[in-house]
Amino acid sequence: MVAAAAKSDSAMPDRIAQAVQRLQAALDHKVVTGRAVREQHANVTTYLPNEPADAVVFAECTEDVQAVVRICDALSVPVIPWGAGTSLEGHVNAPFGGICIDLSRMNRILAVNTADLDCVIEPGVTRKRLNEELRDQGLFFPIDPGADASLGGMVSTRCSGTNAVRYGTMKDNVLSLKVVTPTGEILTTATRARKSSAGYDLTRLYVGAEGTLGIITEITLKLYGIPEAVSAAVCPFPSIEAACNTVIATIQSGIPVARIELLDEEQVKASNAYAKLALAETPTLFLEFHGTEASVHEQADRFGELAAEYGGGPSVFAVKPEERTKLWQARHDAYWSVLPMRPGAKAVATDVCVPISSLAECVMETKRDIVEMGLVAPIVGHVGDGNFHTTLMVNVDDPEDLAKAKHYMKRLVERALAMGGTSTGEHGVGQGKMKYMEGEHGTAALEAMRAIKRALDPKNIMNPGKIVAI
Amino acid sequence: MVAAAAKSDSAMPDRIAQAVQRLQAALDHKVVTGRAVREQHANVTTYLPNEPADAVVFAECTEDVQAVVRICDALSVPVIPWGAGTSLEGHVNAPFGGICIDLSRMNRILAVNTADLDCVIEPGVTRKRLNEELRDQGLFFPIDPGADASLGGMVSTRCSGTNAVRYGTMKDNVLSLKVVTPTGEILTTATRARKSSAGYDLTRLYVGAEGTLGIITEITLKLYGIPEAVSAAVCPFPSIEAACNTVIATIQSGIPVARIELLDEEQVKASNAYAKLALAETPTLFLEFHGTEASVHEQADRFGELAAEYGGGPSVFAVKPEERTKLWQARHDAYWSVLPMRPGAKAVATDVCVPISSLAECVMETKRDIVEMGLVAPIVGHVGDGNFHTTLMVNVDDPEDLAKAKHYMKRLVERALAMGGTSTGEHGVGQGKMKYMEGEHGTAALEAMRAIKRALDPKNIMNPGKIVAI
Repeated sequence: MVAAAAKSDSAMPDRIAQAVQRLQAALDHKVVTGRAVREQHANVTTYLPNEPADAVVFAECTEDVQAVVRICDALSVPVIPWGAGTSLEGHVNAPFGGICIDLSRMNRILAVNTADLDCVIEPGVTRKRLNEELRDQGLFFPIDPGADASLGGMVSTRCSGTNAVRYGTMKDNVLSLKVVTPTGEILTTATRARKSSAGYDLTRLYVGAEGTLGIITEITLKLYGIPEAVSAAVCPFPSIEAACNTVIATIQSGIPVARIELLDEEQVKASNAYAKLALAETPTLFLEFHGTEASVHEQADRFGELAAEYGGGPSVFAVKPEERTKLWQARHDAYWSVLPMRPGAKAVATDVCVPISSLAECVMETKRDIVEMGLVAPIVGHVGDGNFHTTLMVNVDDPEDLAKAKHYMKRLVERALAMGGTSTGEHGVGQGKMKYMEGEHGTAALEAMRAIKRALDPKNIMNPGKIVAI
Repeated sequence: MVAAAAKSDSAMPDRIAQAVQRLQAALDHKVVTGRAVREQHANVTTYLPNEPADAVVFAECTEDVQAVVRICDALSVPVIPWGAGTSLEGHVNAPFGGICIDLSRMNRILAVNTADLDCVIEPGVTRKRLNEELRDQGLFFPIDPGADASLGGMVSTRCSGTNAVRYGTMKDNVLSLKVVTPTGEILTTATRARKSSAGYDLTRLYVGAEGTLGIITEITLKLYGIPEAVSAAVCPFPSIEAACNTVIATIQSGIPVARIELLDEEQVKASNAYAKLALAETPTLFLEFHGTEASVHEQADRFGELAAEYGGGPSVFAVKPEERTKLWQARHDAYWSVLPMRPGAKAVATDVCVPISSLAECVMETKRDIVEMGLVAPIVGHVGDGNFHTTLMVNVDDPEDLAKAKHYMKRLVERALAMGGTSTGEHGVGQGKMKYMEGEHGTAALEAMRAIKRALDPKNIMNPGKIVAI
């Protein structure tokens, strides 16, 4: 166990102090050791305690990252990469201390290759800024996790979000990565070719590795043409099951829906109260269709027919951008709308994903838990992928409340695993989900992951204490 | 270098003999040592020499595979997996001897989950048989490499083919794998969830690993609903450049084309002669559109408009299945049509893939080489992905002819790499492309691949002498 080893390493504080000194000598004003900055960089947005690094280095280029990693490698000191601080499972905590590398200043868009529908960017670029920069060229990057995350973080958590059902997840949309290895070397995982069979898929190995195998300093992403037409719809259903069955029928019939999101009646209530909307307080699907004018009409019509078969509808549609935004407001504001439901409590997001045939059952059983345990936990779901979140309001300072929340979360993950699902569809493992890795993957697969970690980061300096313990 | 180590290992023949004895004792009639069977299992369909294993084991279940691997692990003897023998880069050769595991009898379809659009199969199932079995349920598996390959082989080479432009490659369509590890343990790479962020992406690590990290004994694949309507088109162009520019415009404008294939004028000539067709002998695009009736019409119309802008057309269209097949015959028969062009010679397929903006230039420079070197090498291309093959006719028994062919192939790969492309878009590395790995990936990335191989297969018994030498 790395945790034990690192904790028992009495020389670590000395080595860290030396590392900070050397970094200050090498990188001067880019190194910050003030408590506020360090704590802000360990902001975990969840129930996990804040565990700050000993210094934060504001890297401005790949060479800065190399300099930090080389010093930390020489002294066996942990390195924790940081993008925008939107992670949800303690990915940016520094449980053994060490050096946080803030990559937010590495935010240049290095190339946009319109003919190839790709771009090369630095990891600190956020998704909103990327899309602002691309808009004039008629292009966009579709992955949308809600928060304005950095692309480096999105790569590292194998993030997805509302339109993965159409455009895939980060694993499907990264062509290549430049990575600083744990010894400070630079490797490039692939060429800009759209596909390759040239050896092990290093790109997909670093996508979702949460900074535990190296630090990403350049990303080549696939891009898409902005659809000619976009249509949005909101469709109420008599039950969760009816909504889920409509989703299954929609996917099966090949309607290339771009987004299909579920809000349960509790979430709709919260959204109505928060944004002064008047939606029917019943399970509701929010949809978006992308294509040509004719195609989005056809998609919407076909969806409407399927929904009606399950008692859903009538849908409200919107085509103009401002109307679409208004229609989708309840979905976009879901997180914020839950916060006033339990003032003083913290919102903790769960993230299971199950085969879609089990989705209705998984959601229903989870709702039963929520009611029986007296929790505040509205549900939003990327239901086209079988992935749903409950926004659990927890009073993290109340041990009893926290224990109840943990019990609920454990039951939720175990339910998803029993249904052939995963503990995390898109948020990642970080610290929070490590305890479920053995149950989800089994000993042999987990040992293969450990072997990879040991092979590529033998000193265990890369974001230690995340994903796997070695 | 493993090659040197293995060759200098004088005890290998003894250990192999022991392994064969133990296998015969354990698996009896499933073990075959006759020369003809062994040579058939090292059929490399290329210029590389046949290097047969010392025995072929016809595995019937995961336990058979485990039994073989455990015996080979105990004796440090190579294990070479075999599916349908359609690989193109010497993947199934046994350069150091050892045991070939024939997986073709492991051909059961274990589950078809229609609601989840997935299936669980054994690796010996071939793609044609899978689609025959799925048809009644309105489902299909899209990846089509041409040959009736086994799914295990398709996973292992990260294969793609004619409709990757719409449906992705094997990396995008495998949900999970059951793998027998080099020590004979069983691991499962993922759950059936459509997406997950739970740790390192073991699935994508084994996809494309060519049997060098373990033996795949079960595959969970994504499936798709058979499109309501399919329309095919054949469109002549005045030049390669015009055809390539039309492809770029088609992709950029978001037409969700299902297949878009280029045949150069030499290939069209060969196809006309072979199948008694009367196509205009000029660069030609073969297309397929999938969707609703209205959508495929719209797609075809829009493509036609774009093609006309570059001087292409008029297109010939077909909607009925038998007419579509007839229209696409020239593409489907491309390989066979080239064989009579140089009787006695062997067809060797090249496989570079470049960013699509460089495709026309790469094809034109390659054609110049073909003409200047006096080669027979018609071109077919999965141009939507920037991937093209030349079917090079080589007299492999003539050292001069073979040397010229190798010189041409080397120049082709170097050209693709210089353009930011890859040495292999879909055929894999095997033995044939190992020499390009350092040039393509660089030392640091190649060393990361070697580290992974050493970590997961420390005795180097899994298909040694392929992809990377450790």
